[in-house]
Amino acid sequence: MAEQKKMVEAITSMDEDFAKWYTDIVKKAELMDYSSVRGCMIIEPYGYAIWENIQKILDGRFKELGHENVAMPLFIPESLLQKEKDHVEGFAPEVAWVTHGGNEKLQERLCVRPTSETLFCDHYANVIHSWRDLPKLYNQWCSVVRWEKTTRPFLRSVEFHWQEGHTMHATAEEAMQETEQMLKVYADFCENDLAIPVIKGRKTDKEKFAGAEATYTIEALMHDGKALQSGTSHYFGDGFARAFDVTFQDKENKTQYPHQTSWGMSTRIIGGIIMTHGDDNGLVLPPAIAPIQVIIVPVAQHKPGVLEKAAEIEAELKKNFRVKTDSSDQSPGWKFAQYEMKGVPLRLEIGPKDIEKNQCVIVRRDNREKTFVPLDELSQRLPELLEAVRKGMYDKAYERRAQMTYTAQDMDELKELADTKPGLIKAMWCGDLACEEQIKNDAGLSSRCIPFEQEQVGCKCVCCGKTEGLRMVYWGKAY
Amino acid sequence: MAEQKKMVEAITSMDEDFAKWYTDIVKKAELMDYSSVRGCMIIEPYGYAIWENIQKILDGRFKELGHENVAMPLFIPESLLQKEKDHVEGFAPEVAWVTHGGNEKLQERLCVRPTSETLFCDHYANVIHSWRDLPKLYNQWCSVVRWEKTTRPFLRSVEFHWQEGHTMHATAEEAMQETEQMLKVYADFCENDLAIPVIKGRKTDKEKFAGAEATYTIEALMHDGKALQSGTSHYFGDGFARAFDVTFQDKENKTQYPHQTSWGMSTRIIGGIIMTHGDDNGLVLPPAIAPIQVIIVPVAQHKPGVLEKAAEIEAELKKNFRVKTDSSDQSPGWKFAQYEMKGVPLRLEIGPKDIEKNQCVIVRRDNREKTFVPLDELSQRLPELLEAVRKGMYDKAYERRAQMTYTAQDMDELKELADTKPGLIKAMWCGDLACEEQIKNDAGLSSRCIPFEQEQVGCKCVCCGKTEGLRMVYWGKAY
Repeated sequence: MAEQKKMVEAITSMDEDFAKWYTDIVKKAELMDYSSVRGCMIIEPYGYAIWENIQKILDGRFKELGHENVAMPLFIPESLLQKEKDHVEGFAPEVAWVTHGGNEKLQERLCVRPTSETLFCDHYANVIHSWRDLPKLYNQWCSVVRWEKTTRPFLRSVEFHWQEGHTMHATAEEAMQETEQMLKVYADFCENDLAIPVIKGRKTDKEKFAGAEATYTIEALMHDGKALQSGTSHYFGDGFARAFDVTFQDKENKTQYPHQTSWGMSTRIIGGIIMTHGDDNGLVLPPAIAPIQVIIVPVAQHKPGVLEKAAEIEAELKKNFRVKTDSSDQSPGWKFAQYEMKGVPLRLEIGPKDIEKNQCVIVRRDNREKTFVPLDELSQRLPELLEAVRKGMYDKAYERRAQMTYTAQDMDELKELADTKPGLIKAMWCGDLACEEQIKNDAGLSSRCIPFEQEQVGCKCVCCGKTEGLRMVYWGKAY
Repeated sequence: MAEQKKMVEAITSMDEDFAKWYTDIVKKAELMDYSSVRGCMIIEPYGYAIWENIQKILDGRFKELGHENVAMPLFIPESLLQKEKDHVEGFAPEVAWVTHGGNEKLQERLCVRPTSETLFCDHYANVIHSWRDLPKLYNQWCSVVRWEKTTRPFLRSVEFHWQEGHTMHATAEEAMQETEQMLKVYADFCENDLAIPVIKGRKTDKEKFAGAEATYTIEALMHDGKALQSGTSHYFGDGFARAFDVTFQDKENKTQYPHQTSWGMSTRIIGGIIMTHGDDNGLVLPPAIAPIQVIIVPVAQHKPGVLEKAAEIEAELKKNFRVKTDSSDQSPGWKFAQYEMKGVPLRLEIGPKDIEKNQCVIVRRDNREKTFVPLDELSQRLPELLEAVRKGMYDKAYERRAQMTYTAQDMDELKELADTKPGLIKAMWCGDLACEEQIKNDAGLSSRCIPFEQEQVGCKCVCCGKTEGLRMVYWGKAY
C-alpha cells in the first residue's frame, strides 16, 4: 500500500487545484506530452488510442447515415478565405500564414486551415450541377490550426484533431434536419458511449459560428462547475453557396442555391472525459472508448499456475474485449494504482486462492465495488459489469450537474450565484445582445445555449426585466 | 452498347498518351479533384475509401507487430529542423514556412512538417531514459508537405497523406532488424493485397534518405516502363539520437545512444495501383482494397422479382463482402462501363432468365471472364473468385515486368536500352558515385536499388569497367 499511496500522492487533489489536477492527469496517465512548438501537443499512445476508439464509433455512425470521407487540402489561399465576409472576420485573426515555399516568397499567402468550409464550397462548386448530385454528405478527419494565445492540453491548442462534416442539400428543410440529426448523433455518443450528460441547445447570435445562420451545441458540465462546449452543428442556409457560386438545376430545371451544414467534434472531448469523470486517483474512462477495458493483475504471480491462468483468461476475454495482463515485476499495489491512474474500467485480480475456488475478483474503477465472479461465467458477466460502470459514471455526472444547476430571477441573484456557486444558471433572457453583453461584463457569465427543452424559470429578462420574447438560457463560465 | 462505347471513348488510350490516360482515370473514376491550392489535391470519396482500406490493412499489421499510433505536431521550429545536418540540407529547400500567426510575425519560423524524424527525436529525448523504455515503436497517420515544383495526382503532390513509423531500439542489430521487417511488411502488402510485384533492395548512398545510414526500398514497374518507389524503410544508426541527445541507461547502468528507424508508405501507392493494373477501360482494383468488391447490376430490372432478388443477394453478400447494387435508371450497358471504369473486381448480373435458373452471371474485371454461379453457392464461391482476380492481376503484372526487364554489359548497351526499351535494366556497378552520376547524365537512368536478391549479370562495372566490388543494380526511369 505504501507504493500505491506514493503514486496517488503524485496527483494534486482536485479540490486543492483543479487546473493542476488536470495537467497532472494528462501527463501521468501518459495521454500527451508538450512539444517544442508553442501550443501544439504530442498525443501519446494511450491518449491516441482513446481518440482512435472515439473515431471508430463516430465514423461508423456517420457512414451508417450515408456520409463519405474525403481529404481536403491543408492550406487555404487568402483570397478563398475572404470570400465569405463573416467567416473571414471570425477566423483571419487566428490563423497561421504560410508565406514562403522553400526559398521563394509566395505570390499569395496561404493559411493553414482553421476549418474547411471555404475549401468544401470551392470543391462543391466544381461537382454540384444537378439535383441528382445532392445531397453531398462529406466528412473529413484531420487537424486544424487556430493561433490561440492561451492553450491547455486537449481543451485549447494551436493545432487540434477533429472531424468536420460538410453537407449540401437541395432544400433548407433538409439541411436543417441534417444539422439537428448530427447534433443528436453527438449527444447520443456523449451520453451513451462517453457517459457524459449533455444539454442540447442553440447558440445565441453572439456565440454562433462565424458565417452560420444557426449553431447548435451540446454543453457538458465539468467537475469544477465550468461548462464545456462538446460538439457543434451549424446551419448555413445558402450564404456560403452564394458567396462561392455553388448552384444546381432543380427538377424543374431552375437554377438554385443549395443549403449547407457543417458539424464537428474534436480531441477537446478527451478533456471533457477527464474533467467529467476523473477523480483524485486519476482518469476514469468510459468502457466504450477505454484502450484497456479490463486489466488483469495476477496476485502472487510467482506461485505455480497463476500466470498460466491469467494467460488463459486473457486469451478467452480477448475475443470480445480490450484486455491486457500486467505480469511485470512491479507489486500488485503498484499495478492497482497504475491502472486506476489510467482509468481502466475493470480490474481483474487472480491469485492462488481464487484459482482454487475457480473464481476471480473484479473491481470497478468508478466506485471500487468488488465482485467475485466464477471463471465459467466471466465472459457472460463482463458486458453487464462494463455497462454497470458506464451507468454508474453517467448517473454520478448527472446527479452532480443537477446539484450544480441553479436559477436566477434578477442580476443580483445572478451575480451572487456566479460569485459563489460554480455551475450552470438557468435564467430568462429577452434576446437582446445588450443584455447578453451586460451579463458577461457584470457577472462574468456567457450564454451557453438556449436549450431545446425550455422551462419557464421566471417571467422577465434576468437583466433588463422585459417580459416579452423571453427564452430560457443556460449561463455559465466555460472552457 | 452505344452508351458503353461512349464512356470508354472518354478515356485516352494508354498507348496514345500514358500521362493523359492516367489523369483521365483519376478524374473519371472520381478518385480526386484539383483544388485552388497549387499542387494540393482533394481526395474524393471513392479515392479516400481506397486509402481507408489501405490504412486498415497496414494499421492492423503494424499493431500486430507491437507498434502504437501517436500524433505529433504539424509544425517544426526552424531550429529543430536544423539539428541534424544532412537532414536539414535535404529538406529545407522544399518546405513551406509559416512566418505569421494571426497578425503577428513569429519570432522563429515554423516549417510545415515534410517528415517528422526531428519531432519524434525531440519527444524521445523526453521519454526515453532507461533500457526499460525501449523499444519505442511509434507510428502516425498524417499528411506532410513538400514544396514540389511539378506535381501529379497521387504521384507527387505538395501535400500528401502517409504513415510514418519512427522507432528507437537499444541496439543497432535490433534497429536493423526492424528496418528489414517493415520493408517486408510493405512488400507483402504490395504483393498479396495490392497484387503488385515489387523488388526489395537497398538504395545507393546517392539515393538514400537525408540523414539515414541506409534506405531500403520496394520498387514496382509501371505499365509505361517507369519505376515507382512504393515504400521505404530507413536505418539511422544513432546519428539523430546524438544530434538530439537521446540517451538511455543500459542494464549495466551505462549511458548509451539508442538506434533508430523510420518507414513510410503514402497515397502515392494509389498511383502505383492505377499504373500497374489499369487498362483502357479504366481502373482495375485489387479486391483487398476495392471500395466495392462486387457490383450487382440488375438486368431488365422493371420485370417482376428482379430488384427483389438483387436486394436478397446483396443482403446475403453484405455480411462478408463490400457489395453495392446499382438500381438507378441508367441502362445496364452504362452501368457495365461505369463500374469497369471504377475498377470493381467482380460484376454480378441478375435478370429474369438467371432467376429462373436460380443462378447469376459473374464477370471478372481483370480479364472479363464470365462464370455462371448457382445462387446457392454464391457466398462460398466469391472468395475464390476474388482470389482468382487478385492472382490474375499479379501474374499479369509479374509477366509484364519480366518482359520489360533487360540486362546491359556496357554503356552503349545501357544507352541503347534506355532509349528504345521502356523498363528496368539490370547491370553491374562498382559502387562509385561517379559512375552512378555518369549513368544518370548519359543514359538518363537512376539507380532504383541494389536488390537483396543479387544476380551476376556481368563481370565488370557497366560504366567504368572495373571488375572489383561489383553489385547488381536495377536502373530505370522513375516517377
